[in-house]
Amino acid sequence: MVTSHRSRVVIVGTGSVGAATAGAIVLQGLCDELVLINHNPDKASGLAMDLMDGSDYTGRFVSIRRGDWADCRDADIVIVTAGPKPKPGETRFQELGAAVDIVDPILCAIRDSGFDGILIMVSNPVDVLSWFAWKRTGLPRAQVIGSGTALDTSRMKAIIGDITRLDPRMVSGYVIGEHGDSQFVPWSTVSFVGKSFTRYLQDNRSRYVDITLDGIEERTRRRGLLIKSLRGGTSQGIAATVAGLARTILWDERRVVPVSTLIDGEYEYDEHDVFLSLPVALNADGVGDFVDLHLDESELAKFHRSARIVREHCAMIADRL
Amino acid sequence: MVTSHRSRVVIVGTGSVGAATAGAIVLQGLCDELVLINHNPDKASGLAMDLMDGSDYTGRFVSIRRGDWADCRDADIVIVTAGPKPKPGETRFQELGAAVDIVDPILCAIRDSGFDGILIMVSNPVDVLSWFAWKRTGLPRAQVIGSGTALDTSRMKAIIGDITRLDPRMVSGYVIGEHGDSQFVPWSTVSFVGKSFTRYLQDNRSRYVDITLDGIEERTRRRGLLIKSLRGGTSQGIAATVAGLARTILWDERRVVPVSTLIDGEYEYDEHDVFLSLPVALNADGVGDFVDLHLDESELAKFHRSARIVREHCAMIADRL
Amino acid sequence: MVTSHRSRVVIVGTGSVGAATAGAIVLQGLCDELVLINHNPDKASGLAMDLMDGSDYTGRFVSIRRGDWADCRDADIVIVTAGPKPKPGETRFQELGAAVDIVDPILCAIRDSGFDGILIMVSNPVDVLSWFAWKRTGLPRAQVIGSGTALDTSRMKAIIGDITRLDPRMVSGYVIGEHGDSQFVPWSTVSFVGKSFTRYLQDNRSRYVDITLDGIEERTRRRGLLIKSLRGGTSQGIAATVAGLARTILWDERRVVPVSTLIDGEYEYDEHDVFLSLPVALNADGVGDFVDLHLDESELAKFHRSARIVREHCAMIADRL
Amino acid sequence: MVTSHRSRVVIVGTGSVGAATAGAIVLQGLCDELVLINHNPDKASGLAMDLMDGSDYTGRFVSIRRGDWADCRDADIVIVTAGPKPKPGETRFQELGAAVDIVDPILCAIRDSGFDGILIMVSNPVDVLSWFAWKRTGLPRAQVIGSGTALDTSRMKAIIGDITRLDPRMVSGYVIGEHGDSQFVPWSTVSFVGKSFTRYLQDNRSRYVDITLDGIEERTRRRGLLIKSLRGGTSQGIAATVAGLARTILWDERRVVPVSTLIDGEYEYDEHDVFLSLPVALNADGVGDFVDLHLDESELAKFHRSARIVREHCAMIADRL
Repeated sequence: MVTSHRSRVVIVGTGSVGAATAGAIVLQGLCDELVLINHNPDKASGLAMDLMDGSDYTGRFVSIRRGDWADCRDADIVIVTAGPKPKPGETRFQELGAAVDIVDPILCAIRDSGFDGILIMVSNPVDVLSWFAWKRTGLPRAQVIGSGTALDTSRMKAIIGDITRLDPRMVSGYVIGEHGDSQFVPWSTVSFVGKSFTRYLQDNRSRYVDITLDGIEERTRRRGLLIKSLRGGTSQGIAATVAGLARTILWDERRVVPVSTLIDGEYEYDEHDVFLSLPVALNADGVGDFVDLHLDESELAKFHRSARIVREHCAMIADRL
Repeated sequence: MVTSHRSRVVIVGTGSVGAATAGAIVLQGLCDELVLINHNPDKASGLAMDLMDGSDYTGRFVSIRRGDWADCRDADIVIVTAGPKPKPGETRFQELGAAVDIVDPILCAIRDSGFDGILIMVSNPVDVLSWFAWKRTGLPRAQVIGSGTALDTSRMKAIIGDITRLDPRMVSGYVIGEHGDSQFVPWSTVSFVGKSFTRYLQDNRSRYVDITLDGIEERTRRRGLLIKSLRGGTSQGIAATVAGLARTILWDERRVVPVSTLIDGEYEYDEHDVFLSLPVALNADGVGDFVDLHLDESELAKFHRSARIVREHCAMIADRL
Repeated sequence: MVTSHRSRVVIVGTGSVGAATAGAIVLQGLCDELVLINHNPDKASGLAMDLMDGSDYTGRFVSIRRGDWADCRDADIVIVTAGPKPKPGETRFQELGAAVDIVDPILCAIRDSGFDGILIMVSNPVDVLSWFAWKRTGLPRAQVIGSGTALDTSRMKAIIGDITRLDPRMVSGYVIGEHGDSQFVPWSTVSFVGKSFTRYLQDNRSRYVDITLDGIEERTRRRGLLIKSLRGGTSQGIAATVAGLARTILWDERRVVPVSTLIDGEYEYDEHDVFLSLPVALNADGVGDFVDLHLDESELAKFHRSARIVREHCAMIADRL
Repeated sequence: MVTSHRSRVVIVGTGSVGAATAGAIVLQGLCDELVLINHNPDKASGLAMDLMDGSDYTGRFVSIRRGDWADCRDADIVIVTAGPKPKPGETRFQELGAAVDIVDPILCAIRDSGFDGILIMVSNPVDVLSWFAWKRTGLPRAQVIGSGTALDTSRMKAIIGDITRLDPRMVSGYVIGEHGDSQFVPWSTVSFVGKSFTRYLQDNRSRYVDITLDGIEERTRRRGLLIKSLRGGTSQGIAATVAGLARTILWDERRVVPVSTLIDGEYEYDEHDVFLSLPVALNADGVGDFVDLHLDESELAKFHRSARIVREHCAMIADRL
């Protein structure tokens, strides 16, 4: 029967990111059922109970429980947050081998469950692992995304909101490329309250004496590391972001968001077989149309640099497939 | 001008409970401004940034920042979550001395700021510290509450929801007394879908063969410890609960919830100068009317036992005042 | 693919009730797609545009459009609000013949579309027409409900909230029977903040000198007529109620609500082949378990009186089947 | 005490627009208290009851009642929707005299109440009456706004959303000038998913063969009349819009929205003593900063035309002050 459809989200990994993401989903009441999977099932059980314990104070009753791989079969969305504990000083890429060790069996299990929904990769390095997940699961490209620069984009907006004291959601623009050091803001495409953001800054130069585009971009890029140095890790921002991506899918919002997606010859981007973040229309079926941003030459160069970095790292783990 | 009122919530303590509470407040968009205070200001800064980073995906723009004691002055609500790291095997009361060491200077600073809003104590042992906070700050009794058994009540409902597979929010009833081992459910006052819950269980005896009132009460009482043993601590349940209390106050919901409040001769409770959880009508001014639950003799005995336990511990710290 | 499920609600009838219900659904963002059908398609088009025009200020983007019967096929919920304009002084039953003339072809068209979701009848006399709709469409009994006393129950709660100045949603109880003059409140089953509502009134007798159970029941029963006499019709209350029923179904909330449903020998109710409102667990599949309210003798007599009245009117239109 | 602040919205006029606006405010739970005033108090009472009757199904308990002018005193926002019934064929300006007859005593009563919040004029012709309201009440300019082209802007976005099948809230741009025939879209300032909307249309020319900027602008301008011709009036779109403005103020969202505001020499607009819609930052104190849109010459000419039209009509009623 049509109406027996119940929306289910599965989260794999219940560390600080998985737990905060689960919390964001439950507090916003995004699905009928939330299923938690962890290699240590006690941790998943404990988180499920902890989340259920707030149910008297939430706006929508969400059914929450520990689950197993079979629960992926009928899931609308599976979110993979599992990963190795980052060791101090390591870059995202140095953790790559350890990450694949953890993520590969998860992906196999998801694939073997018969899952045919949208897979959201959050584990880092997210672009590399999203590509790996796409290969491993055999899911259609529209159904595999990485959280990518969706978080960095929100960070850029938050920083602009902080500077202007205006609602950051009014910024129309994206951070694109690798979710990592080679990410960048194509400023020529960013607008704010009826003008390019570049113009906005000029118009209000006296107010924002020390503010530059480069400065905002650099603060955006360094934001994750800064937060880690201040509080030991990030969780709330990525959680709200991933919950936001889940919402866009579950609610079929058809919102354009930058997520890591397979690039395969689109427009001027001219890259193949690599996952990078670009703005795409996200809906209940996953990735829809790409947006042609008309990057200028220097922006394209940055994009290709991101592609090269990600592709090199994909090559390192290609033999694992 | 009337309209320049902006609602502000201050959270003191940005550990796992403080952070999850902040997340719950921001994700539900409960106030205009959220201010974070921590003895290590870096941690407060980091959490503020982390929370801001999700702003593109939330329904309401909340201004978030690290603050200091002066920010309490115009706050509607100050939430105190700070406390010593629990050492394995210690009871809540064994941590009492260490807790007062941490909480006392916080309360002095809040008082000295000129704060005249609602103070929500979350730090444990919550009943003892709420009493201490009331004494220390000199705030009117209506303006000092402890989260108390608001969480345990939600836990009882969640457990009943889990058993019945029905929306737990339909349970009408409360866990009362101490937020601790001596808490109890006055079952004679708990109803569910048009009948007493006791009757509901009888009516569906064949379905719930192994379920007893005592069993539910015991699961409720042990829930926190169970979650701690499974995942190392609790955060999501208490966060949703405290955010729910804040919402009831900020939105003037006039909802009856069990919170730790000064008992001073009300009804049959017949206790004085002690903080314990009882259902009270919460609104924008804080604690309003008490509910006379008509406890039976054995329930009253349990209540007095809770009172005795809490009062004994208050006595231990009375010389700190 | 699993994720291509998009939730669709169809509203048939775009008069004041249909329009307000559509508004309540869109403002609360309950579904992906809202389809409007009216015998005058211009009115449906106009309402669709009017609703879309607020989309910049709503929290969820809902796709809204005029549709036709084929749109019922994949709908999760079809809501029928169409009916004859009430003539002054007529009772709900006097309008019965005219109502069937309007509703019957609608039900045939819904059936012929292949619809297999939940049908919510709102048109009056709602109990009679829900029975007729169940017969006409051949849908399983779980999938045909009438809004019934869901509205009257909310009215009773609103009146109690108005009297007590407390959040009316804390009232646990139901108006049952016919959505009409023979409806009644089984007071023995109504509780409020930890006690029976009867006891609550006694406990606060000095405050509510002039308040009686009979008075509340009578105000509830007359509320619709009073509002009609004051402002010419009712729309907002029924709209929020019907949207609430749709939400309970779409979100699989498993909430117990009183709706008009086929009674077929359940418990002490001992009636057959009649639609009346009783509390039932509503979920994504429609009507689940009934609640055994343990009505006393006088309440049962009132219930049978409601059944007799509705059954007599069903008899009048049985030859239309 | 700080926390005793309760947010109150007063709506004057409970016709179809006032009623739908009230519904939108209650369904979104925007304030603690909603007060309704109508020259026929029965209509206000009836609407208050009708709205209260849905309270069991709404997410936030809002206190709703009929009120009188004294209730404006402590209100955060007063919304004026009262106006003469439009006669077929009349323009907004032909109704001007009748509108002033109705609105003037309302404004005097609001002023005399000691109101010092934000006044939102909805009655048409809204620009003229907003100017009149500002003069009559003596409120600071930041505290008097007209709903203006906030609705037309949402209409433009809805039309673009309808064309592109993407979330219309992603359109960054405004309809400005008179809320009437002389309104216009400064297309050079409108962007969409990372580029100017003009460019977006070009990029997707094959998909949108028949779509032109002029066509979208004309559909926007005619939308109200079209809906009126289809369903006899508009209510849902303006209701969601006005509730959205109230939300921006009550929640201090600091969102830039186009509302009718006093223009007094800002930027290139170079007009004085006239109310027209321009994008301004709206917050809890009302109108904040203006946005300098850098209109081109032809856009400026259109703006001055709007100003001339509004000013001429203000002149007609200046002797009423």
